[in-house]
Amino acid sequence: MPRINGQIRIVGAGLLGTSLGLALVKKGIDVSITDTSKAAQALAIDYGAGRLPLPNDSPKLIVVCVPPDNTAGVVAAELAAFPNAIVTDVASVKQSVLLELQQTGLDLAHYVGSHPMAGREKSGAVAGRADLFMGRPWVVVPHLSSDLVGLDLVTDLALEVGAVPTVMEPIEHDHAVAAVSHVPQIVSSLLAARLLSTSAQEISLAGQGLRDTTRIAASDPALWVQILSANAGQVAPVLKDLAIDLNAVIGALTDMEAGGSLATISRTIESGNRGVERIPGKHGGGHANYATVVAMIDDKPGELARLLTEIGQVGINLEDIKLEHSPGAQIGLVELSVLPDLEAKLISDLTGLGWRLV
Amino acid sequence: MPRINGQIRIVGAGLLGTSLGLALVKKGIDVSITDTSKAAQALAIDYGAGRLPLPNDSPKLIVVCVPPDNTAGVVAAELAAFPNAIVTDVASVKQSVLLELQQTGLDLAHYVGSHPMAGREKSGAVAGRADLFMGRPWVVVPHLSSDLVGLDLVTDLALEVGAVPTVMEPIEHDHAVAAVSHVPQIVSSLLAARLLSTSAQEISLAGQGLRDTTRIAASDPALWVQILSANAGQVAPVLKDLAIDLNAVIGALTDMEAGGSLATISRTIESGNRGVERIPGKHGGGHANYATVVAMIDDKPGELARLLTEIGQVGINLEDIKLEHSPGAQIGLVELSVLPDLEAKLISDLTGLGWRLV
Repeated sequence: MPRINGQIRIVGAGLLGTSLGLALVKKGIDVSITDTSKAAQALAIDYGAGRLPLPNDSPKLIVVCVPPDNTAGVVAAELAAFPNAIVTDVASVKQSVLLELQQTGLDLAHYVGSHPMAGREKSGAVAGRADLFMGRPWVVVPHLSSDLVGLDLVTDLALEVGAVPTVMEPIEHDHAVAAVSHVPQIVSSLLAARLLSTSAQEISLAGQGLRDTTRIAASDPALWVQILSANAGQVAPVLKDLAIDLNAVIGALTDMEAGGSLATISRTIESGNRGVERIPGKHGGGHANYATVVAMIDDKPGELARLLTEIGQVGINLEDIKLEHSPGAQIGLVELSVLPDLEAKLISDLTGLGWRLV
Repeated sequence: MPRINGQIRIVGAGLLGTSLGLALVKKGIDVSITDTSKAAQALAIDYGAGRLPLPNDSPKLIVVCVPPDNTAGVVAAELAAFPNAIVTDVASVKQSVLLELQQTGLDLAHYVGSHPMAGREKSGAVAGRADLFMGRPWVVVPHLSSDLVGLDLVTDLALEVGAVPTVMEPIEHDHAVAAVSHVPQIVSSLLAARLLSTSAQEISLAGQGLRDTTRIAASDPALWVQILSANAGQVAPVLKDLAIDLNAVIGALTDMEAGGSLATISRTIESGNRGVERIPGKHGGGHANYATVVAMIDDKPGELARLLTEIGQVGINLEDIKLEHSPGAQIGLVELSVLPDLEAKLISDLTGLGWRLV
């Protein structure tokens, strides 16, 4: 049984709108999806993300999934067209959207902002996937005049698609995403821009570190200009702090003989260590909720199978498995992920069966 | 038949020394491995990365795998102790090591620098793996007075362990690694340090973008102080350029109404796009040389074991395995990596046994 009992109307058939439609249709909910691009709309419908809107539709919830600059305008139009519906949006900035809506003078009781922290480097309906929101945070952003019913409904929407709802005020949200999303975007872009002045031979030395740090530098400029300009007030102070630290490092590297230069560099790397440790479920992604047990196996055909056969025989289902495997070594490490309830049983069963755990 | 016909002596049983030993022993080469830490040495030998050095050893090639600050000293000692051997090192900086060696007044004809572009966040012998160098660039760094025989031998060493040798001068190498490795390290650390002033709730919104951009911020401060101070002259100018761009972005975000502010932000993201496009084989990684077969399994206990049992029974050893598992879905996808020679056999055997391949 779906949590949401009623029609849902999705406005905007890009990555987020299409993914949301796919997830909701899968739950048996009546979803209509519309887009100013009829091609995008047709693609999303073919893909299974909803049906065409009908003249007598009476949506309970409307989700506006359009670029940030258009969000307030579309939300206002939907509030006017469907006075009985709750309207939410998925824009990555919340304060500027709310301010623009407040300037319209509309009654905003039926509006609740939201922001699912989910995305891909790819965009458009074709990139849509029903599990996009699974295990991801979904920020629900009520304001002083929003109805509680809207807050509940948008929270249910997040739960319906497997996301983890969390409630924040608009300014709190914008401050948080500045740190975890907008500043990393700018820093990654600035770093990747350095590669414009390196030779092909130099870039051929690139390793995983460079690839990881610059992956999001491939993001869409048009979208990011909208996001960053809408959240400039929160992003600029963080970048100013970063610039202070950067200048200290440049000073140290420019005069390594000066007292304190080594300490400045060391402190920079150590602060980074402590910062990255604060990120929850570092190796996770969606899988932060699994417990992990590492077993050692002999590196020969059939050993991994024997381990997994015995795990199957004791009735434990693995959620994930990673092989840490060196072709030349005599030993392989197998990282087994299970639901936390099963961790103790897995450890005692494997130990009892004679497996060596790390 | 191995390319290198003779003993190889590895000095330093950390991640690189142990990995190199594993890869060379696998090729049937006589490898001795030594470390000032007898515990590390014993672990590397247990792991299969070589044997104890013997008094009458006569190595053809010596590979010094110690931290950058100790590299020149150890290279000098090895050149003195084994006058018939070629000596190379694997330090991530090359100009400063060479200068320090030149100051000893030793004959450096038998010394050739090198730098395999391979590593892991984990360190020490336990993290060693024979495939660490597979498909990775290995920079060979001769100098004006080095013998050609040394250049050839170190090139063979790189090829022997599956790396891709490329020859650079010391200063060229240091300039290249500043851009592709040292600057990304500092930038990632500076970015991760911003997380020290965010709340737990804010950090809970972290997504893959933040995780990727800050992954290398977990690196070892002691090692990086050595690397960065030894290559300060190459790193500082790149950081200065980055600081100029950063200040332009801060200026734009601080006054979004000013003419050119949107253009500055747009240009920043676009330059990042063009920079990241220059990175070759973006989706690469260490395992580019394995073939991959994807099988579908029912999502229930024992199915993965049954698959792997049958793979073991047909005598195929897996190099890697990844489970693509969507909770709630009835199907799991198993990505099986094997040596390329075995791909056709794996496909035909699995198909014959009734497994569905993707």
